[in-house]
Amino acid sequence: MPEEKFTPPAGAFTRSVTNRFSHCDPAGIVYFPHYFDMFNGLIEDWYTQELRHDYAQLIMGGRFGFPFVHIECDFKIPSRIGEVIELTLLVERIGRSSLGIAIVCHRDGVIRLRARMVTAMMSLETKKPVALPQGLREAMEAYQRRTAAA
Amino acid sequence: MPEEKFTPPAGAFTRSVTNRFSHCDPAGIVYFPHYFDMFNGLIEDWYTQELRHDYAQLIMGGRFGFPFVHIECDFKIPSRIGEVIELTLLVERIGRSSLGIAIVCHRDGVIRLRARMVTAMMSLETKKPVALPQGLREAMEAYQRRTAAA
Amino acid sequence: MPEEKFTPPAGAFTRSVTNRFSHCDPAGIVYFPHYFDMFNGLIEDWYTQELRHDYAQLIMGGRFGFPFVHIECDFKIPSRIGEVIELTLLVERIGRSSLGIAIVCHRDGVIRLRARMVTAMMSLETKKPVALPQGLREAMEAYQRRTAAA
Amino acid sequence: MPEEKFTPPAGAFTRSVTNRFSHCDPAGIVYFPHYFDMFNGLIEDWYTQELRHDYAQLIMGGRFGFPFVHIECDFKIPSRIGEVIELTLLVERIGRSSLGIAIVCHRDGVIRLRARMVTAMMSLETKKPVALPQGLREAMEAYQRRTAAA
Repeated sequence: MPEEKFTPPAGAFTRSVTNRFSHCDPAGIVYFPHYFDMFNGLIEDWYTQELRHDYAQLIMGGRFGFPFVHIECDFKIPSRIGEVIELTLLVERIGRSSLGIAIVCHRDGVIRLRARMVTAMMSLETKKPVALPQGLREAMEAYQRRTAAA
Repeated sequence: MPEEKFTPPAGAFTRSVTNRFSHCDPAGIVYFPHYFDMFNGLIEDWYTQELRHDYAQLIMGGRFGFPFVHIECDFKIPSRIGEVIELTLLVERIGRSSLGIAIVCHRDGVIRLRARMVTAMMSLETKKPVALPQGLREAMEAYQRRTAAA
Repeated sequence: MPEEKFTPPAGAFTRSVTNRFSHCDPAGIVYFPHYFDMFNGLIEDWYTQELRHDYAQLIMGGRFGFPFVHIECDFKIPSRIGEVIELTLLVERIGRSSLGIAIVCHRDGVIRLRARMVTAMMSLETKKPVALPQGLREAMEAYQRRTAAA
Repeated sequence: MPEEKFTPPAGAFTRSVTNRFSHCDPAGIVYFPHYFDMFNGLIEDWYTQELRHDYAQLIMGGRFGFPFVHIECDFKIPSRIGEVIELTLLVERIGRSSLGIAIVCHRDGVIRLRARMVTAMMSLETKKPVALPQGLREAMEAYQRRTAAA
């Protein structure tokens, strides 16, 4: 399988993760569920640092949840202990209560894995979907516009 | 979203998992990466108990790995602490070194989530894909035949 | 270090755990934080199955928590993927809201690791310790008596 | 229980950790095994960044392991989602192949939890303890001296 190159769009939200001993399995590579945990951490930071909506406050204060309804992921190159990988978040689609994102994991400009994930905002009280609050939606839309590939 | 019913085919490999305190997040539901860990445990048991090829021995003795190359998952109903859920494994496609499976997570005949996963057998020494050994392939094919829906 | 033998007292609560691929680290042995997760699972099952107080119900219904205040653990023999280990829970001390337990992890009558853990029952609403309810305390005391070494 | 104050000695190795959604349990506080995982991450960074011995290289290249032989931990104040906590590593005792460390988790100068952990360097090939290499030992001793409280 040929390498697939990746350069994040200007302004895209990217964070580094060091692959820990505890991420790795007896084969010496990252055990795949840990990637999904890294993705959730990236999303938390994106809400808090990029969208300026504190994720912890949305959960514990607002009593909202963001469960995933769909995930798909292609794993291209395994990652090893000690390697630093980059995770970039891109917005694909903003619905009434749903959000479709792509997360690209890369290193040295080459894709390691790529995921598409759809989440739905819900109330932890009613257990029902809720519409994305206006301020949050606008922050998502602005992010999507400014990171759209030319 | 309407409920989706599920009855495992006769002879399908199904195991129960109790949702632990540690599986659950501050929203009180199973944190999604734990499902992927449960899936891996199910696959381990399927190799060892159903296909009669000891998974630990394949990894540590045979120096083989079974990394995932593709995963997709639809989450339909969240699961809560203390609930016992059922996981059923079905074979979709057997390639030269790859294996496509479906895992259905259900309770009381209703689907909670459903995943499709493709794994590739590889050598931990050469880091290259290897053809599924004949005995393992035959066990997979026999399982696929006897669990194919009528 | 010489082996240390262990035979659980008659009636002691013991559960088996299969060491999973995902429990193991690049050194091929169980990554130690997973033991603590296994211990918590054992305690959950002990409440529900042995003391007949449903753990999930205590947490989600009763809004109680059982945080640890002290843990100590001696690791004697590492465990490997595919091995089945036994976990035995013994009661050391029952306080007003606190509970001191020992957990012995063993295989073939030889100790793998041994932990002592102190937990305190608290209210998730007030964040304060609460006295162990009478029925729960009596179940703990009865268990302690019937599993005390002669 | 009164608060216990803590100021790291000058030059002590301290790293921040953000408590993630995935660290927290249905009670909304960090699930305790995650602290041990954080501790291991701190130790990895300490080897690599402070002692200048690359941890990943020691494991995968040198085929060494650093299993724990003893752990004790006192949990004083729970931590919540979104909180940033500080972890400080101090050296207590350097043996032939063993290392005794203390890890203090604190926030705003107040101790959250405190652990003492003893690890032993071993060969992954022979499964036997090995003497700490001279360069590594000297780096540990120098760190211990420069961070000893006056």
